[in-house]
Order: sequence, then structure tokens, then C-alpha cells
Amino acid sequence: MPRTGRRPGATQTREQILDAAREQFADKGYNGTTIRGIARAAGVDPALVHHFFGTKEDVFTAAMQLPLNPREALWRVIGQSEGDRAETIVRFFLSIWEDPEGRAPMLAMVRSATTHEPATRAIREFMETVILNHVATNAEVSPLRASMMASQLFGMVLLRHIIGVQPLASATPEEIVQIYTPALRAVLEPPQPPEGASEVT
Amino acid sequence: MPRTGRRPGATQTREQILDAAREQFADKGYNGTTIRGIARAAGVDPALVHHFFGTKEDVFTAAMQLPLNPREALWRVIGQSEGDRAETIVRFFLSIWEDPEGRAPMLAMVRSATTHEPATRAIREFMETVILNHVATNAEVSPLRASMMASQLFGMVLLRHIIGVQPLASATPEEIVQIYTPALRAVLEPPQPPEGASEVT
Repeated sequence: MPRTGRRPGATQTREQILDAAREQFADKGYNGTTIRGIARAAGVDPALVHHFFGTKEDVFTAAMQLPLNPREALWRVIGQSEGDRAETIVRFFLSIWEDPEGRAPMLAMVRSATTHEPATRAIREFMETVILNHVATNAEVSPLRASMMASQLFGMVLLRHIIGVQPLASATPEEIVQIYTPALRAVLEPPQPPEGASEVT
Repeated sequence: MPRTGRRPGATQTREQILDAAREQFADKGYNGTTIRGIARAAGVDPALVHHFFGTKEDVFTAAMQLPLNPREALWRVIGQSEGDRAETIVRFFLSIWEDPEGRAPMLAMVRSATTHEPATRAIREFMETVILNHVATNAEVSPLRASMMASQLFGMVLLRHIIGVQPLASATPEEIVQIYTPALRAVLEPPQPPEGASEVT
């Protein structure tokens, strides 16, 4: 058989690193975990962790089996979109949750976040440190508004995919885009007060 | 000691009925459970269940230790409010979640809904049959929009109270009202299309 690009044992080493990473994230939270600490726990060199995965954010993405790196995903929708940002965000968020294969690990993550304190802390810190910071910075929206956008989007996941409340559970993505976009826009882009009114936001 | 209004054993009988009710709801869902079935499982007369609790909705409220009957709560905010309905709904929803004592059993309910299939089914059916139907009927909003309003509100609970994502977790109710009201309004009351535009909702 021809040799593949990977050296023998690479898969096993990757798994060893990811197991160590999951333990470290559960134990120390997202912020308290370092590449160095993961490497030490896995008994490998930190450079190898970098080599296999990249940044801590990438290790978390791989450890949680998320279908894509949130930073790259957010950059694609927020950093580069022309036109209606709110609609782009709703469409993109729906698209990653509509794929059953990508959805399963994300559902597992949300379920853990609601029930296991160690997982809750890691996921909370990951959301705050990575996702919301990127949104706040790149979308020029306050961290509070960014966290409220996240609450709108994850609320949809909770009712549609986790609890399965009808008719939301069987609505088409297009129906959701039509109704949810104006709502997300109201959080993303505060309505301008009418002439002469006092500023409330 | 003076006799209280309740006959001896009433507390025990109530608990017996509530235990039976929790089992029935978990086993048969909300829709499949009847007062008669709960009474049979508890070994009491159906009239006694009615006497202690009222309707099936009231039994569910008591079994889940919810701080108030959702039907009455919804009637208070939707059936009678004058002025800004979206703001009234956001304020009322916040008020019941801000009280730590009332919050605990509701958090337990949301957590069960995300993790235990029998609880998920009972809670899903309760939301669909009781809450969303009341909203759709009394607020004259489509069931799809009603379920999306619920997703906005429970998304806030998920991030603020369950995962604890900052800065939402420590925002004041007033900050939330200011940002969330326009979003909820966009779902509750579809924006009118501008003159000459085609209807999209």
C-alpha cells in the first residue's frame, strides 16, 4: 500500500491531544487552558499541538467537533458581507444548523452547556472570548448587543432543534429568515430615534 | 393546637397526586395525560385532583413548581395590556425570571427539556398546546410568529441564566427591555411594507 502523507500514529496522537484538550477545557475553562497545558497533559511537544490544530480556538473547535471554526465563520458573514448584514447572519447561522451531520456535535455542546458545570464554563468563556468579541469588533456592535444577537440565534436552536416546538421546528429556513431578520436587525442596528426624540440606546 | 382548614393528610395526598402527575406527564406527554389517568395512578378520585388543582394545565404548573399559571400570566400581559404589547411582554417575562425563587424550578424545567426525552416531550407539548395557542389566539399573531417570540425569550434565558454569557448575564432588566423590545416587536407585529413594495410576510 502506498504511504499516506501522515506518519503512522498521527491519528492516535491527534486523539490523545484532543482527549487532553477536552479534559483541560472542562477542568480550567476556556480562558484557563493553554496550548502548553494541553501538550503537557497529552505528553507531547506544544509545537505538535500547533502543528496539528493551530490556535487554542482551533483546538477547541476540533475537541468539540464543531463543523467549522467560529472565527472564520464569523469573518465570512460579518467581515465581508455586502448588503443586509442581519439577513446574512440569519442565513449563515441557519445553514450550519440545517446540516444534520454538522448539527449533532453542536447540539451536544449546547446540551452540555445547560447541564454540566465544567462544560458550561468552557462554552461560556469560549462564546465570550471568541465569538462575541469577534462579533463586537467586526460588526461594530456593543458586546451587550452581540450577546443578545447570540441569545436570539441560540433561542431558535433551543426551540427548533432541541425542544422541537411546532410550528418553528418544521418551518422552512426561508420562513425563519423572513421573520427573524427584522428582529436580529433591531438588535444589530439600533433604530434611529425620530427627529427631536431623545436617544435611548 | 387549632385545626387548620385542611383535613389531616391533605398535604400528603397533594404530593401523591403531584408525583403521579409527574410520572404521567413523563410517560404520556402533556397531551396524552388526563386528570382521570393522574387520579387513577395516585389512587384517588378525579374530583379530588380537580378540587386540589383545577385543570390539567394547573396540575402541570404545580407538578413543575412553576411560579404561576402560564395561561393567567399570558392573559395578564396579552389580553389586557394597553399600549406597547412587545414591551409589556418583555418586561413581564423578565420579571418572572428575575426572582431567584421563581427562577429555580423554571431553570430546572428548561434543563430537563434539553436533556431528558420524556421531559422534553411533555414540555414541548405544554408549550405548543397551552402557551403558544394562548399567545396566537389572544395576541392575534400566527403560531409561527408566537413560537419565534418564545425562541427569542427562552434564548435570553439560555444565555443569561443558564450559560451565563456576559455581558448579557449581568445586564440590568432595563437594558434588556430597551434592546429586546424592538426585536420582539418585529416578530409580534410584522413591519408594514413601504408603499409600492410587495408583501413578504
